[in-house]
Amino acid sequence: MTGILKTTEKNLMVFTGRAHPGLAEEVASMLGTELVPTSAYDFANGEIYVRYEESVRGSDAFVIQSHTAPLNEAIMEQLIMIDALKRASAKRITVVLPFYGYARQDKKHRGREPISARLMADLFKTAGANRLMAVDLHTAQIQGFFDGPVDHLMALPILSEYVREKYGHEKLAVVSPDAGRIKVAEQWSERLGHAPLAFIHKTRDINRPNETVANRVVGEVKGRICVLVDDMIDTGGTITKAADALMADGAAGVVIAATHAILSGPAIERLKACTAQEVIVTNTLPIDDAHDFDKLTTLSIAPLISRAIQEVFEDGSVTSLFDGHA
Amino acid sequence: MTGILKTTEKNLMVFTGRAHPGLAEEVASMLGTELVPTSAYDFANGEIYVRYEESVRGSDAFVIQSHTAPLNEAIMEQLIMIDALKRASAKRITVVLPFYGYARQDKKHRGREPISARLMADLFKTAGANRLMAVDLHTAQIQGFFDGPVDHLMALPILSEYVREKYGHEKLAVVSPDAGRIKVAEQWSERLGHAPLAFIHKTRDINRPNETVANRVVGEVKGRICVLVDDMIDTGGTITKAADALMADGAAGVVIAATHAILSGPAIERLKACTAQEVIVTNTLPIDDAHDFDKLTTLSIAPLISRAIQEVFEDGSVTSLFDGHA
Amino acid sequence: MTGILKTTEKNLMVFTGRAHPGLAEEVASMLGTELVPTSAYDFANGEIYVRYEESVRGSDAFVIQSHTAPLNEAIMEQLIMIDALKRASAKRITVVLPFYGYARQDKKHRGREPISARLMADLFKTAGANRLMAVDLHTAQIQGFFDGPVDHLMALPILSEYVREKYGHEKLAVVSPDAGRIKVAEQWSERLGHAPLAFIHKTRDINRPNETVANRVVGEVKGRICVLVDDMIDTGGTITKAADALMADGAAGVVIAATHAILSGPAIERLKACTAQEVIVTNTLPIDDAHDFDKLTTLSIAPLISRAIQEVFEDGSVTSLFDGHA
Amino acid sequence: MTGILKTTEKNLMVFTGRAHPGLAEEVASMLGTELVPTSAYDFANGEIYVRYEESVRGSDAFVIQSHTAPLNEAIMEQLIMIDALKRASAKRITVVLPFYGYARQDKKHRGREPISARLMADLFKTAGANRLMAVDLHTAQIQGFFDGPVDHLMALPILSEYVREKYGHEKLAVVSPDAGRIKVAEQWSERLGHAPLAFIHKTRDINRPNETVANRVVGEVKGRICVLVDDMIDTGGTITKAADALMADGAAGVVIAATHAILSGPAIERLKACTAQEVIVTNTLPIDDAHDFDKLTTLSIAPLISRAIQEVFEDGSVTSLFDGHA
Amino acid sequence: MTGILKTTEKNLMVFTGRAHPGLAEEVASMLGTELVPTSAYDFANGEIYVRYEESVRGSDAFVIQSHTAPLNEAIMEQLIMIDALKRASAKRITVVLPFYGYARQDKKHRGREPISARLMADLFKTAGANRLMAVDLHTAQIQGFFDGPVDHLMALPILSEYVREKYGHEKLAVVSPDAGRIKVAEQWSERLGHAPLAFIHKTRDINRPNETVANRVVGEVKGRICVLVDDMIDTGGTITKAADALMADGAAGVVIAATHAILSGPAIERLKACTAQEVIVTNTLPIDDAHDFDKLTTLSIAPLISRAIQEVFEDGSVTSLFDGHA
Amino acid sequence: MTGILKTTEKNLMVFTGRAHPGLAEEVASMLGTELVPTSAYDFANGEIYVRYEESVRGSDAFVIQSHTAPLNEAIMEQLIMIDALKRASAKRITVVLPFYGYARQDKKHRGREPISARLMADLFKTAGANRLMAVDLHTAQIQGFFDGPVDHLMALPILSEYVREKYGHEKLAVVSPDAGRIKVAEQWSERLGHAPLAFIHKTRDINRPNETVANRVVGEVKGRICVLVDDMIDTGGTITKAADALMADGAAGVVIAATHAILSGPAIERLKACTAQEVIVTNTLPIDDAHDFDKLTTLSIAPLISRAIQEVFEDGSVTSLFDGHA
Repeated sequence: MTGILKTTEKNLMVFTGRAHPGLAEEVASMLGTELVPTSAYDFANGEIYVRYEESVRGSDAFVIQSHTAPLNEAIMEQLIMIDALKRASAKRITVVLPFYGYARQDKKHRGREPISARLMADLFKTAGANRLMAVDLHTAQIQGFFDGPVDHLMALPILSEYVREKYGHEKLAVVSPDAGRIKVAEQWSERLGHAPLAFIHKTRDINRPNETVANRVVGEVKGRICVLVDDMIDTGGTITKAADALMADGAAGVVIAATHAILSGPAIERLKACTAQEVIVTNTLPIDDAHDFDKLTTLSIAPLISRAIQEVFEDGSVTSLFDGHA
Repeated sequence: MTGILKTTEKNLMVFTGRAHPGLAEEVASMLGTELVPTSAYDFANGEIYVRYEESVRGSDAFVIQSHTAPLNEAIMEQLIMIDALKRASAKRITVVLPFYGYARQDKKHRGREPISARLMADLFKTAGANRLMAVDLHTAQIQGFFDGPVDHLMALPILSEYVREKYGHEKLAVVSPDAGRIKVAEQWSERLGHAPLAFIHKTRDINRPNETVANRVVGEVKGRICVLVDDMIDTGGTITKAADALMADGAAGVVIAATHAILSGPAIERLKACTAQEVIVTNTLPIDDAHDFDKLTTLSIAPLISRAIQEVFEDGSVTSLFDGHA
Repeated sequence: MTGILKTTEKNLMVFTGRAHPGLAEEVASMLGTELVPTSAYDFANGEIYVRYEESVRGSDAFVIQSHTAPLNEAIMEQLIMIDALKRASAKRITVVLPFYGYARQDKKHRGREPISARLMADLFKTAGANRLMAVDLHTAQIQGFFDGPVDHLMALPILSEYVREKYGHEKLAVVSPDAGRIKVAEQWSERLGHAPLAFIHKTRDINRPNETVANRVVGEVKGRICVLVDDMIDTGGTITKAADALMADGAAGVVIAATHAILSGPAIERLKACTAQEVIVTNTLPIDDAHDFDKLTTLSIAPLISRAIQEVFEDGSVTSLFDGHA
Repeated sequence: MTGILKTTEKNLMVFTGRAHPGLAEEVASMLGTELVPTSAYDFANGEIYVRYEESVRGSDAFVIQSHTAPLNEAIMEQLIMIDALKRASAKRITVVLPFYGYARQDKKHRGREPISARLMADLFKTAGANRLMAVDLHTAQIQGFFDGPVDHLMALPILSEYVREKYGHEKLAVVSPDAGRIKVAEQWSERLGHAPLAFIHKTRDINRPNETVANRVVGEVKGRICVLVDDMIDTGGTITKAADALMADGAAGVVIAATHAILSGPAIERLKACTAQEVIVTNTLPIDDAHDFDKLTTLSIAPLISRAIQEVFEDGSVTSLFDGHA
Repeated sequence: MTGILKTTEKNLMVFTGRAHPGLAEEVASMLGTELVPTSAYDFANGEIYVRYEESVRGSDAFVIQSHTAPLNEAIMEQLIMIDALKRASAKRITVVLPFYGYARQDKKHRGREPISARLMADLFKTAGANRLMAVDLHTAQIQGFFDGPVDHLMALPILSEYVREKYGHEKLAVVSPDAGRIKVAEQWSERLGHAPLAFIHKTRDINRPNETVANRVVGEVKGRICVLVDDMIDTGGTITKAADALMADGAAGVVIAATHAILSGPAIERLKACTAQEVIVTNTLPIDDAHDFDKLTTLSIAPLISRAIQEVFEDGSVTSLFDGHA
Repeated sequence: MTGILKTTEKNLMVFTGRAHPGLAEEVASMLGTELVPTSAYDFANGEIYVRYEESVRGSDAFVIQSHTAPLNEAIMEQLIMIDALKRASAKRITVVLPFYGYARQDKKHRGREPISARLMADLFKTAGANRLMAVDLHTAQIQGFFDGPVDHLMALPILSEYVREKYGHEKLAVVSPDAGRIKVAEQWSERLGHAPLAFIHKTRDINRPNETVANRVVGEVKGRICVLVDDMIDTGGTITKAADALMADGAAGVVIAATHAILSGPAIERLKACTAQEVIVTNTLPIDDAHDFDKLTTLSIAPLISRAIQEVFEDGSVTSLFDGHA
């Protein structure tokens, strides 16, 4: 037979943009490698330039970028990085999104809106992404927005384990800050000894008809430490009001737990000021020292991401990291 | 300038498969036209054959098919109808799905599962569909599965108006049969004078540890007529148990309201036997006479669909049918 | 160079749906492996659910499904299986179709018909199939419907070898039951010592003008054992009438040979009653015991399919299995 | 409502490359318009340049090109014309192929062959074609190669009407020159008063085993005028040998009828020399005067093509031109 | 014929993002309409939200956005606007780019770089753009990056007309600031009475070997008013150094003319300080008052864009705006 | 785990069409292998037939074809070869284009022109090409026309090294024959000790107003050996007139260097007759003996192409062959 025969090898390479390099370094280091040296900077008019300092031909490339402020910069940089990998003949490109930007725009709430979460999935595909890995998508349906394999990682085991160890001996309740996310609260309940559930219902208070909205607690929380769970904390308005409503309803205490610490605008002030005694998040998004505060606990997501990358590279099972759930 | 000039016209044509022709006829008739005559039959080995009896060239085609049993037949027939329209030069093809099959498989609940709801969207696209119209998708995110415009129609105004007229004078509560769909209950609450909310939490009963699951009512329902709302009734197990749990918790009565009456397997028996006093559904799916029963009320969805088709054809606003929500 | 290096391996995995598991097991066993354990069942409303019990990441997946009754179920199940494989990161997905459903709808016979055979190819592609393997396509042009490699396997060597051994000492003729498939009869003739050819021409009989159609034998069959060949036997009407016409024309006997035993509706009764002395088919489609009958001979297609899969997996030549023809 | 409203018009424009301008002019003239003025020439190294002399924005464009020698030039020119139309904002582009090049390579006859007929369909799609119109495709399955509407025109009514008028009073037989095209002969038979069928079987002659191939007539032709029908005459080898075999078998005469007069290499000499008394073709391909000869009759295909274009432009039915067959 | 017939209308609608609304308003007003009312704002974490206040169904939509700082925001906003239009059933979407961001990254200057200009074209296509309109692309080849019609508008007539009127009586030379853009200078030369050409060659000065780069004037400029032409002025370094080199070489004066006034970083200071007597630009990019300065002349591009949109809407010729060049 | 495990191997296979087999053989031989045996011939009507004589399943295929006269034949043959490879299950297909046909049609020079260079890229993609390798594209932006990795090889090192060795001791100038390609001349200048630059400006001569065009030398060339550089020599008109203009302007001599020797029409005569003393080209295009002439020097491009293929096959860096430029 004509030709030149050669055994095939694959090479795991980890890349990062400039949004949250610390996390990417932690992931690479846990994998036992280093980030691929990359030049990236902005031209004077804001255009982003990217170039890899090493050959990436034939690589199994993982491009880590968390969509943090300036968020559109972060997304565009990642798209450009993927384009460069595609044109430099990377064999397979996996987009790793500790936080998936625009995930909340996952449907048309009203007519003539975009579905930006689907748009993002399509943009990554167009740039050249073959696969996508993300942590705690706002809704699991976003998996279906990408035309290809999606590995959906969950911070729940990390967060709930911490809560169970620290508060497991107390009388707990699991509370959802709004009606749309009680399903997640149910998963927490299961992991916390089937603690009772509650949620906050925003409604007009019939006793004070002049005020437009009140937070009504639906479910029993009296005398319990309430674990108030959400996927993300953005400006913190909803969750801190929920914490206060719980205390007003007789809760023994409130602990806030969320995967993504966006913490934009007044979030830090609100969290500091609210009645919650601890706020537990992961580092899917960068938290600079200025934003840190006493009752904030940050758990690292890097072990989860690095193990998932390892499984993907070695054709193992990512599902097994979550007991079959994905 | 060379050439032959001619004013462009468009021709609205309505098509249906064999799954639920009654609804399609009702829709066509409300639009002031008739269904396009179509030959459709199964070959001896089960292959479906379709042919239109009239030229469809240049038409603005609406293909109505509800995904009812035998469900895969219904989907395949619709795909084949779309292919025939595409190859016969229809100008624009809108898939009209009173009930969107496989909508519940909208994410990977566990590893190595399909996302069949996305697959369906892709199959319709591949066959030649340009647009999609559907009633009460299981999750609104499914809109993002289709690469093109989706008109999402809501039966809520029809159903809630009926309930408001008949039960509006009573003390009501709106109840979601499970934790994942309370958001919909909130919309009902808004339309029923901000009636209080509740949901059913499936949990292990700590008093009877040998039984695996109990239905715990979260929220206040005592002495109220509970409007138990869902998008669909399939085998009816969850919703009838929820009705019984509400009555056990002191509800004054239970009314079940749902858009899609799948009513498969033991559903009819369960609904007849359960404590609910009325079961209100629409005819997005065919309900044969044998399946009808005393406390079942069926409202027609045809006025909604025909008005939406009219708006699409005339480049009007579908959103306006729902006060800006879509 | 940065990164982690690893030799690449590929893993052949064989999957089957519920249409014809016996054949798939036979194929897997001949390959020296087992079918991948798979959960598959129908929900109450007919939606199909599929999940693999093992990691399939990185696999070279072969999904065997024969399109038998209920045919649209079988196709949809296979599409869903492919979607699940794609989303679970299978490396390459080959659709194996012992019988390719809708293959007869391979052109528009009249205006406003679908070309369902092309639609099927597109649906498989959309679901995620990379390659296609099929046995005896109704027309070889269907290979061109799929956008990717197609391995076209032929049962002719298996069938003709059996006929040659059993009837090779007789005076034979090869007969096509209709004018459109004489090319296949020519291939048979070549393998049976250049036996003379004939075909059945459906025409109006000028002697009996009131009857609309008569089967006229074109070619010389008198005193010969006629091997009546076709790609499939569906309801058996055409082929049994052909057999009778041959006997009426003085044939010494008739043997029917076809790859695909669809055997729908009255086929069994017709075959039993007709003048043919033996009916030879393969098991590309399941033949349950109730359908078996004395003069039916079933040859296994599994050796052919398993050898072809082996060649594909090892980058060998499938063509070589057929002396250069494919 | 914001915006500027305007009634939409469409403009039928007819284009041609340099392969067979005479036919295109005839078509345009029958439609009541002229060909759009177009610059087209070859650069010194053979690259083709095309530019339209008028705005084509918004046009309903029909690009007529017959694939004649130099055939690859003709195809490439047409692709380039389509690209220019797409980039100049034509609204809809229909490729009109009086003769579809590479149509005979419609399947893999052997392993490792291309399926060039499918490749051509894909190339036209890629260049920007929305629709395709062709006359007498080698196999009707080629319709399924193009991803979009195909109008398949048939010269059969034109050719058979001529034969019926001139030879209808004689005792006729319809003969296919090879086993693969008897289906077409059947259609001829239907239009010629159900004349009996025959075909030529190429085989080894058992009486003269040293000669490799003989043409055996299967069917009854003695004393009849044989209408020898095919879709095309290329080098004329098969069909002229068939004519001779028919005469040798006692035919009263032979008339050859074919749609596409490729007439390459020795075709003219063979046709002149053969025993056929008339050769009837259409002008789907150009026949220069040097190639004309006494017994050649050329019927114009322009009326058929212009009527079909008219129907497509006016959203009428092309199928109706052929009594429902397409 | 079944169905409802209606004459088709099209509705020109003009949209703008928040990057350069003044230009869009000017364009809309010249067209005789208004911008479609649009809600657009940033969420706290930087995600962009867009919604149209009117139905856009069936519209011929033109989405004007100039890619100015913050540039990635501007691009992402436009992508999201297009997605919203696509999902709201706009009939045709034309992206209007007075300045096309990333246009300079139109090739790989070195290995492992992206081709961001192509990526942008693909992103717009993916979001849903059907057509693209742009002013003075950095290289004309970018037209070929978009898979669809591109209208390439040129500011040259506007700029050169101004220069011709003001400086036409002087002895002129046309100068390109670097070797790569002399072709554009040739077009200027043609419009300015075939004024002689020159360009600046950056080289190592052999007389001062320690300095790495010197600007050498190639061509004759002594005693002439040099029109220094470029497509854009970014930081102004190259062009102001060129002006100084020309004066040092004996030029009688320097006038700078460029389409796109990016004017980032030190540009204003450099332009003020340099030896050029006038700097002529257009308003393809916004120039805020703080950036304005005495010798800066800004010509409006709105007349050009509005005329081009008019031609596109009415299926006229954009090319004719530039005497056949496009 | 179920399945059959096997180490993956890849097999480099080199293919060529009939356009320039000599170069392909040279490349294959340098790689240490042979061309894959291939049947390729034209049917009588000009259709091309291709078939590989060996299994190519799983191969890493490189298809070398230079686009030389008859150019459209060469392109079509290569497309057909790619289609055959795709359908025969080659794993990766790289198109190798020593000369990329239609590269000069890389933009719309005027309205209603095609962008044929983009069309070619799309055609190759559609046929099945995964990657593209080309030598000295007319403009580097063509890299962005292909949706996938492009390896852009440069003959500059080969050509300039030859010139440097032979003429490096002389006083040189580097001259571009037209204003559009001075950038390339700058790269030459860099490699030839920063020799001064010049270019030829085609203009109306103000002294002889009746003649339409004159070649004006811009830059200083007196007394210098002018290296006149271009990417290709087609009919040789521009470059030979440039040579003459340089001599007329006092140059000491002229050496012409270009990568692609198209040499069509009067090229040879013009080159022989012109004042240039040597014409240096590579063999990206075949130069038959009849076309050879005394002052023509042909350098082989095969070492460059074979090294690049080697790097691609072994996942090395092609960029490194050009010191980071690509």
